[in-house]
Amino acid sequence: MSRVLVIGAGGVSSVAVHKMAMNSDIFSHITVASRTKSKCDAIAASVKERFGVTIDTAAIDADDVAATTALIKQVNPVLLVNLALPYQDLTLMDACLAAGVHYLDTANYEPRDEAKFEYSWQWAYQERFKEAGLMALLGSGFDPGVTSVFTTYTKKHLLDSIETLDILDCNGGDTGLPFATNFNPEINLREVTAPSRHWDNGQWIEGPALTNKQVYDFEGVGPKNMYLMYHEELESLAKFYPEIKRIRFWMTFGDSYLKHLDVLGNVGMLSIEPMMFQGREIIPMELLKALLPEPSSLGPLTKGKTNIGTIATGLKDGVQKTVYINNICDHEEAYAETGNQAVSYTTGVPAMIGAALMVTGVWKGEGVFNMEQLDPDPFMDMLNKHGLPWKVQELDAPLAF
Amino acid sequence: MSRVLVIGAGGVSSVAVHKMAMNSDIFSHITVASRTKSKCDAIAASVKERFGVTIDTAAIDADDVAATTALIKQVNPVLLVNLALPYQDLTLMDACLAAGVHYLDTANYEPRDEAKFEYSWQWAYQERFKEAGLMALLGSGFDPGVTSVFTTYTKKHLLDSIETLDILDCNGGDTGLPFATNFNPEINLREVTAPSRHWDNGQWIEGPALTNKQVYDFEGVGPKNMYLMYHEELESLAKFYPEIKRIRFWMTFGDSYLKHLDVLGNVGMLSIEPMMFQGREIIPMELLKALLPEPSSLGPLTKGKTNIGTIATGLKDGVQKTVYINNICDHEEAYAETGNQAVSYTTGVPAMIGAALMVTGVWKGEGVFNMEQLDPDPFMDMLNKHGLPWKVQELDAPLAF
Repeated sequence: MSRVLVIGAGGVSSVAVHKMAMNSDIFSHITVASRTKSKCDAIAASVKERFGVTIDTAAIDADDVAATTALIKQVNPVLLVNLALPYQDLTLMDACLAAGVHYLDTANYEPRDEAKFEYSWQWAYQERFKEAGLMALLGSGFDPGVTSVFTTYTKKHLLDSIETLDILDCNGGDTGLPFATNFNPEINLREVTAPSRHWDNGQWIEGPALTNKQVYDFEGVGPKNMYLMYHEELESLAKFYPEIKRIRFWMTFGDSYLKHLDVLGNVGMLSIEPMMFQGREIIPMELLKALLPEPSSLGPLTKGKTNIGTIATGLKDGVQKTVYINNICDHEEAYAETGNQAVSYTTGVPAMIGAALMVTGVWKGEGVFNMEQLDPDPFMDMLNKHGLPWKVQELDAPLAF
Repeated sequence: MSRVLVIGAGGVSSVAVHKMAMNSDIFSHITVASRTKSKCDAIAASVKERFGVTIDTAAIDADDVAATTALIKQVNPVLLVNLALPYQDLTLMDACLAAGVHYLDTANYEPRDEAKFEYSWQWAYQERFKEAGLMALLGSGFDPGVTSVFTTYTKKHLLDSIETLDILDCNGGDTGLPFATNFNPEINLREVTAPSRHWDNGQWIEGPALTNKQVYDFEGVGPKNMYLMYHEELESLAKFYPEIKRIRFWMTFGDSYLKHLDVLGNVGMLSIEPMMFQGREIIPMELLKALLPEPSSLGPLTKGKTNIGTIATGLKDGVQKTVYINNICDHEEAYAETGNQAVSYTTGVPAMIGAALMVTGVWKGEGVFNMEQLDPDPFMDMLNKHGLPWKVQELDAPLAF
């Protein structure tokens, strides 16, 4: 009996829960809980309608460790799957320790009042999980997540050593709206406006946000501007692959998206600092979030594909090779299957796969784990089977930039 | 003894009060009152320092007719000069009627909850001012104001009949900031985002905001993009000059300004509709106003010139002629004189001139008057003497667009 408790009821949670329900041989019982129970109920209704599977729902304030611990004990899962906001990673890890269950998430902890994107807070739980004989799996989404699994697979099967690694994240989706973020606007805009950072010969090189631009012709999408950014898997990749000389992350943005970002930054709407307004504090970014379309409302509007992958250059049998592993995901197909577009789909499916590997004991351990530490083969196999097929290509040459 | 009471303490008020103090032969006693008395005191301190003239200050809520009436009776002016927000025109006209003093403003009444830009509310006071034997002078700023006086002057001296009239408003000023509005952001953004409207053969032609763009090479500024807009003097010009076949208003905007406007509109920040946010109502436009720089803070930053004028085509002695009357005003020179940049200066000086003509009895009447109804010559004469010199040029041809 593999009972799981999923926390969060956004697009990623919706995808993961639908995919779990599609694999009821692995997930015998699913409970989904979030602050707003009605959102959980909506997911449950969709799962029931699509697949005839009944799941339980509950209301929970994931900031409240005691309440979450009590819920875990009541639901009695083997694993808590955290698909809430990254602000809640630590309280949920605390609750897992208190209740004695395994933990999985898709994005590293972030304090509400600063944008840091680092694993230190969660790695600090290493000894506590070890002592409790529990496993915490960090970052089992697409990026972070699949991108690290692609790298581990590259190292295991394709190259003897990796010299450079580039992660290319292209969302070629179009909502038809002038401006919308395809996941939580606050997290999205924090990430995009953070300084760029990449790993180069043992150190982090920082630069201003969104200044290093390259054009790449993505299969299924076409040529797109992509920008050097920081992204959290760079930290774990640099830690677990000290041999790699240069690790970079690139994300595509359209000119209109960047124009909106520029203006909103200029007028102060991206600030996460409280300001006084009409006698009380307001955080401009939160008002902006309230003004922008709910990412979950974009599903039926989004057309086009995502194309996310890793390009690694290194030696194989003494010869330099460049290998590209990527997945292409269609927004409309993703929406047809679970009612969520590809950005949620590409994160929710890997969350389900990570959870499946944990509850079946294929991936097991005591302590806090990043994706790079685990055997990529069963994960890669499940990606092909559960909606995120990938392929390996050998490129003629390393990236020219 | 010509006592005046000025309501409002923004940039336009500051200019008008400084210019009144420079003409203490006409304005023997000046009181400036606004909601925030400290802003009045700052104007008084500057006037004292620059010209050695003492003016009185008071706190007043211009929405409160009874309180304003009491203040008028206490100050005992011959004229109330309304340089507050246009939301307060009607309550101030009510107070003038109650206290028995003349009235002047620079912009027509506007309800807080809709952007209409029309004189109907104020023209409805016609009989009441007539019966009281009082004069209300509407729109004695630059545009509206001087642009109507230029037209009246054209008709009186330069052309026998006017066929087409174009008002060209160019602000070539640069603050060096990515985005700022040079007067009250709420009023400015309401005006700019309203549909365009122009008078054509007896009817109003409406179009979407900011779509009819022309390039004009402004003396002192250079070539600028200008856009067809609605502006309130079009209504009074069409009423008092039914002979004119086409009346249009053009204003220059830089690409960056329009980019900001586009984005802010897209995300909903220009809305004057309340929205629920964290349990209370917020008007996005008001938060935007709070985020943007105070227009009064832009004075020391602004460089460049404004160039505002009228181009009229018509017949003189049976021959078609095109005449251009315009004023060029330098932001830094304006700032040096009164501590306010040219956008405030070009509105505040005509307010002072209108007030001077009223308190000296050169312009007099009973009822509500627009600028088109009054002899332009003394006004034009004072523009030259008080910082807004103008010149007449004959153009080779009518505007090509």
